[in-house]
Amino acid sequence: DVRRMLSTLSPQNIAQLLESSPPRIRNVLWTLLDPEIEGDVLPELSYEVKSQILATMDTEEMVAAMEGLDADDVADILQQLPERVMGEVLSSMSEADRLRVERVLAFDEETAGGLMDTDTISVRPNLTLDVVLRYLRRHEQLPPSTDNLFVVNRKDQYIGLLPLSRLLTTDPSVTVREVMNTDVEPIPADFPDDEVARLFEKYDWITAPVVDENNRLLGRITIDDVVDVIREDADHSLMSLAGLDEEEDTFAPVRRTAPRRAVWLGINLLTALLASWVINLFQGTIDKVVALAVLMPIVASMGGVAGSQTLTVVIRGMALGQIGRSNLSWLLTRELGSAVLNAMLWSVAMAVIAAYWFDDTIIAVIIMAAMVINLVTAAIAGAILPVALRAVNIDPALAGGVALTTVTDVVGFMSFLGLATWFYA
Amino acid sequence: DVRRMLSTLSPQNIAQLLESSPPRIRNVLWTLLDPEIEGDVLPELSYEVKSQILATMDTEEMVAAMEGLDADDVADILQQLPERVMGEVLSSMSEADRLRVERVLAFDEETAGGLMDTDTISVRPNLTLDVVLRYLRRHEQLPPSTDNLFVVNRKDQYIGLLPLSRLLTTDPSVTVREVMNTDVEPIPADFPDDEVARLFEKYDWITAPVVDENNRLLGRITIDDVVDVIREDADHSLMSLAGLDEEEDTFAPVRRTAPRRAVWLGINLLTALLASWVINLFQGTIDKVVALAVLMPIVASMGGVAGSQTLTVVIRGMALGQIGRSNLSWLLTRELGSAVLNAMLWSVAMAVIAAYWFDDTIIAVIIMAAMVINLVTAAIAGAILPVALRAVNIDPALAGGVALTTVTDVVGFMSFLGLATWFYA
Ligand SMILES: [Mg+2]
Ligand SMILES: [Mg+2]
Ligand SMILES: [Mg+2]
Ligand SMILES: [Mg+2]
Ligand SMILES: [Mg+2]
Ligand SMILES: [Mg+2]
Ligand SMILES: [Mg+2]
Ligand SMILES: [Mg+2]
Ligand SMILES: [Mg+2]
Ligand SMILES: [Mg+2]
Ligand SMILES: [Mg+2]
Ligand SMILES: [Mg+2]
Ligand SMILES: [Mg+2]
Repeated sequence: DVRRMLSTLSPQNIAQLLESSPPRIRNVLWTLLDPEIEGDVLPELSYEVKSQILATMDTEEMVAAMEGLDADDVADILQQLPERVMGEVLSSMSEADRLRVERVLAFDEETAGGLMDTDTISVRPNLTLDVVLRYLRRHEQLPPSTDNLFVVNRKDQYIGLLPLSRLLTTDPSVTVREVMNTDVEPIPADFPDDEVARLFEKYDWITAPVVDENNRLLGRITIDDVVDVIREDADHSLMSLAGLDEEEDTFAPVRRTAPRRAVWLGINLLTALLASWVINLFQGTIDKVVALAVLMPIVASMGGVAGSQTLTVVIRGMALGQIGRSNLSWLLTRELGSAVLNAMLWSVAMAVIAAYWFDDTIIAVIIMAAMVINLVTAAIAGAILPVALRAVNIDPALAGGVALTTVTDVVGFMSFLGLATWFYA
Repeated sequence: DVRRMLSTLSPQNIAQLLESSPPRIRNVLWTLLDPEIEGDVLPELSYEVKSQILATMDTEEMVAAMEGLDADDVADILQQLPERVMGEVLSSMSEADRLRVERVLAFDEETAGGLMDTDTISVRPNLTLDVVLRYLRRHEQLPPSTDNLFVVNRKDQYIGLLPLSRLLTTDPSVTVREVMNTDVEPIPADFPDDEVARLFEKYDWITAPVVDENNRLLGRITIDDVVDVIREDADHSLMSLAGLDEEEDTFAPVRRTAPRRAVWLGINLLTALLASWVINLFQGTIDKVVALAVLMPIVASMGGVAGSQTLTVVIRGMALGQIGRSNLSWLLTRELGSAVLNAMLWSVAMAVIAAYWFDDTIIAVIIMAAMVINLVTAAIAGAILPVALRAVNIDPALAGGVALTTVTDVVGFMSFLGLATWFYA
């Protein structure tokens, strides 16, 4: 029954079903799946789910599944396997397939070379379009997403693009050289994948050529794989802010999630202890005026909220490539201006509340001053931290949030309780 | 000088430069821009930056700039203008252009209809490919990103796709009907844009047909516009968690950022006051044991961190369409399992630290119990809140974080101080 239902679904829908299922059901579904469709489902799965499924397959099954897949998809799968299994699978593949895949495997996964397919169609500049049309007609089909043919010289070096649309609208007696598009710069194989994605987004490309250091055509990148990179990179910022991995399987079992979360909670416990240590310095003051204990979390919390707004804007701006040295000081000034205005508004509001609540004008003045100090600190920390972290090669999306709340907690408690110690002395 | 520099940049790079500039420089750059290129730059700008630029243009300038743009891009611009200006611009456009644009304007911006272009090429099923090829050759060029022609019947109803690649590889004497692809379901014009994006991602489409309720072909959606939807929706989750808008201009001036942030800070001040009110209930206990004031932020903070991990996983899973009624209880169980394990680990660690720090085993037991209670609460709240908020049509990405920390703060302080009151009584 389930088997029959599965056979009516497209590989993409089967992948979605697997992604949305807890691990045990996932494995059951996989064994019920027609082996012929396994190969089409694998590339649609996310990293962790793919790993889990691959762990249940033997070499023979894997080789069978990978037959007919694009080189980039095979490379993605192989890169997830243990070295030994990867060697076994590679040596069981046909010579032609292996060479194709090894061309992609030569490059880091996160580069243009690791993202490319090798199924390009290339033509020479001196041919007439008529010859090209006849050449294409000898193909059974064109590679998926083909919108351009690649024009190369005798040494296989990239010269330009021949869009299919031009091939269809231009007089066939014209030569390739006369109609080819030479505006598109080919992408070097070692170009980082997020910059590849930005180029595709910017120029609305469907496919783009990838070349080696000698400008020789190695393959092509297609928009569908770029879309996956965009989705992953966008996810990265979101997930990292909570200390999670963008590849995280939504339905990972407890034995996988618990240890990962433990690390993050441990880091946060350390920063919370730091804040407690600050409070501990002022035990005497709190003992005198208990209302301080009631109000102190407000100062810390408002700083954290304000700071994370600045932090998020800056991290997003950095991901969009908008923030550099030239405009960072403008941004910092804007954030400071915004912080000062809001500090004035909400610290006064809070002062009035505190004055009435505890019938104490001193505590009102103290919380007002502490909130101003902490909101301004939060703006500075939120704007500077991500840039500073990136400068020392720490991922701002991952470390920025923790670093920020550590600063706003420490400064919040320190300023509030410090001022109180001084005023009530 | 700047003018000369600008003239060497592509519209995309000019857009990027504008996006990366503070407002004043942005306006100066815009006035230095060659009016002929203005139209190509506008569609590349984000919502807010486009707004700012449009505010500096008069009707005539706008009409000139919009000439030659795709209908969807013109519609995007018009929808940002005040009603009156929009009417003026529309009535100054040529009859043909206006009709084209009005077809897109008829639909909500966030639907397939609002996303589509109207520049489709359609053919009849009974033609031979040879006739189609001759028909195409009469075109100067094909619309950008064309990978398929659309096959329609006499009533302009959608029947199937004719991929250019098939047109190029099949014997020209064959009819369209024999080679057309009827696998792709056309997209209804009122289909939400995020689901359109999911279809494109899933099936690796480059373009897809849009039809009205009678299956009549209205236009086509292209992958470049879908990529923009994907980017925006991914941004939405990230920005909303900090109470920001995904359209937020990184370089918005203070007078724009300050009021928006003020609202968010005000909401958070209310929730912080709620937490303070809880602490206030236990003033007497804190007065007796000051160490409680030192340790209480740890309980609240660990709950917040643990809860936001769960929340982020669930919000991401919901955005990917992975979470439904059938697997939510599995997910909740997994989160509870993970929370219990981590609560055991870190609450014991914290208990040991507290015992040594304050030389007090009672406080150690209290913080251990409170942490367990709060981490378990955090897991439940993190998993249930986004689903519950969505059920009542509140955006979980926007409200989830605030709601969650309110819960973890209240439960954290209440359990820790409540237990303390009971133990020390
Ligand atoms: Mg592929
Ligand atoms: Mg990857
Ligand atoms: Mg990457
Ligand atoms: Mg790859
Ligand atoms: Mg684009
Ligand atoms: Mg591919
Ligand atoms: Mg792919
Ligand atoms: Mg367009
Ligand atoms: Mg949308
Ligand atoms: Mg639109
Ligand atoms: Mg895809
Ligand atoms: Mg468009
Ligand atoms: Mg567009």
